[in-house]
Amino acid sequence: MEAFSDGVLAIIITIMVLELKEPEGYTLDALKPLLPKLISYVLSFIYIGIYWNNHHHLLHAVKQIKGNVLWYNMLLLFWLSLVPFTTGWVGSHLEPVPIAVYGFVLLMAAISYTLLLKALVKVEGNDSILSKAVGKDWKGRISVSLYIIGILSSLFIHPLPGYVCYVIVAFIWFIPDTRLERTLK
Amino acid sequence: MEAFSDGVLAIIITIMVLELKEPEGYTLDALKPLLPKLISYVLSFIYIGIYWNNHHHLLHAVKQIKGNVLWYNMLLLFWLSLVPFTTGWVGSHLEPVPIAVYGFVLLMAAISYTLLLKALVKVEGNDSILSKAVGKDWKGRISVSLYIIGILSSLFIHPLPGYVCYVIVAFIWFIPDTRLERTLK
Amino acid sequence: MEAFSDGVLAIIITIMVLELKEPEGYTLDALKPLLPKLISYVLSFIYIGIYWNNHHHLLHAVKQIKGNVLWYNMLLLFWLSLVPFTTGWVGSHLEPVPIAVYGFVLLMAAISYTLLLKALVKVEGNDSILSKAVGKDWKGRISVSLYIIGILSSLFIHPLPGYVCYVIVAFIWFIPDTRLERTLK
Amino acid sequence: MEAFSDGVLAIIITIMVLELKEPEGYTLDALKPLLPKLISYVLSFIYIGIYWNNHHHLLHAVKQIKGNVLWYNMLLLFWLSLVPFTTGWVGSHLEPVPIAVYGFVLLMAAISYTLLLKALVKVEGNDSILSKAVGKDWKGRISVSLYIIGILSSLFIHPLPGYVCYVIVAFIWFIPDTRLERTLK
Repeated sequence: MEAFSDGVLAIIITIMVLELKEPEGYTLDALKPLLPKLISYVLSFIYIGIYWNNHHHLLHAVKQIKGNVLWYNMLLLFWLSLVPFTTGWVGSHLEPVPIAVYGFVLLMAAISYTLLLKALVKVEGNDSILSKAVGKDWKGRISVSLYIIGILSSLFIHPLPGYVCYVIVAFIWFIPDTRLERTLK
Repeated sequence: MEAFSDGVLAIIITIMVLELKEPEGYTLDALKPLLPKLISYVLSFIYIGIYWNNHHHLLHAVKQIKGNVLWYNMLLLFWLSLVPFTTGWVGSHLEPVPIAVYGFVLLMAAISYTLLLKALVKVEGNDSILSKAVGKDWKGRISVSLYIIGILSSLFIHPLPGYVCYVIVAFIWFIPDTRLERTLK
Repeated sequence: MEAFSDGVLAIIITIMVLELKEPEGYTLDALKPLLPKLISYVLSFIYIGIYWNNHHHLLHAVKQIKGNVLWYNMLLLFWLSLVPFTTGWVGSHLEPVPIAVYGFVLLMAAISYTLLLKALVKVEGNDSILSKAVGKDWKGRISVSLYIIGILSSLFIHPLPGYVCYVIVAFIWFIPDTRLERTLK
Repeated sequence: MEAFSDGVLAIIITIMVLELKEPEGYTLDALKPLLPKLISYVLSFIYIGIYWNNHHHLLHAVKQIKGNVLWYNMLLLFWLSLVPFTTGWVGSHLEPVPIAVYGFVLLMAAISYTLLLKALVKVEGNDSILSKAVGKDWKGRISVSLYIIGILSSLFIHPLPGYVCYVIVAFIWFIPDTRLERTLK
């Protein structure tokens, strides 16, 4: 399961760069319209990097893979596979709807990750290392709240604070999740 | 053989998303024309996920790879590699011919999978775990029948029931194939 | 080295399908102009499959990787990475130059493979399994001759016999190279 | 970490070829406008090959991966992921700005690699094999200087000497970095 997921994440993170279409001129000015696309790409690159990192640690803490776990994993990969599409859209249009849709895809990925986590904890049991390491999953809960705030504020207030919410979530997760690492030791 | 197949399947499942071209506007309405493409993508994503899952279990039940097995595997990958193309076509045109062609590619993939299965059973012998686990391969037979019904009804009746046939096949396979898992234990 | 090469070959074989652009209509006639592209794709798919297969066996017969071996491998991957480009060109224009260029890329890949083979035999020694298994490399010599005949006849006679030459080479290699398998046992 | 990085590098090296768009005619002349793109592709192919090779050796010399190492690795992959974009731009416009931007991305990748190296040496300790093998990292220092010279001369003198600087760096690294190999033995 890990090799396939690693492959899919590696492809997602790399094909996103295909959204950066070659500029039409050859001056520095020709790069300017690419700037929002580049910023959008950077944030998504960090997100996929975070998911890869945590996914990786997660699977290492797990001893057995059962039935529905596999499909929760596919659900996570499905939502993450939509990230290149929404990244490109946000990069072209820094407008309420694209930024809300971007947040929605991230929200769905976060929920899929939580479902995957819960399914794995169920298989491993409440006394397992994984269960202790995950704990009450505050990080996950805060992320979901921030995504919802981001989506709503981008739709009804202004796209900027919405986008800032997603940046904050990325910052929260940026520091490698040491829960698993620590408990595993 | 597994690493290469895993890689190819991971790429197939991910490049399909490239069919979702960036919408032209930045409103929710701009997403509407993408809806059939998205639905088409979801079904193909599930199909490739199913193939990956079963292919994975299959190779784990096998001890040796011989001559023609490798080419049956390539044949399966070839037909699956055409899925992004047919997925995109169905997504743009929910019409008889594209849906029939989509079904034809799935049918060819199913037949290739059966040929791969039979070649592996032949190598492993009739008393092997694999042979017992596969049994009479009812699931495979029903799938092939449903694909043919789907192709014909999409060509001569209406594309919708044809597409529904493919959805039913996906549902049948959605539940992980426990034959191999169970027998392996 | 194997994981990276496997990855590159898996991507090459899969991105070729991106050359099959979505047809403009939704009838069977709309598929007709894709036919030469599809045939071109099939031959290249078989070629990359053959290279993956032999490359795989080759690396399994080898115990150590030294300096220049790595760069001969990169040279092989470089020429194979041009196959999607030439495949697309041949698929759009069944004309002398594209078919000759297609053959030239295959010829360069074949020469790179021979260089890789010789470098590996040199590292392993003349008494090694690899050296015995490869022998006089008749298959490689015939292939190179056929590629050259194909290029010349496509340029100066007609593209068809040129293309047939490449098909014959594929047939020669289609049967898994049992030299290594047999000698390894 | 290695599998994911290998995957990303394999995809980067392969999607670059997508920049080689199918020529419009079917004569040898139709290939001419592709020549600068092809040259640009060759250099980038060698660069990614070099990074893959050294990255590979680097991770083999390392026993443990800690926190920030992972993010320095992501930083390296981020800059390398921009190489297909800058390669395409240079291939279309052999002009001062694109060549300077190409050099800038290579410079950032080189700095990221140095940061990754230093983070790994810090984790492994000053007496580690890695630390001894890397030494004073002359190669890295010369590369950074050459990149800066290349960027400046391409902006203020002429693009050609700038590009030549990058070719020289590639030559310096072309010979596999035997420091690690030797010290590991």
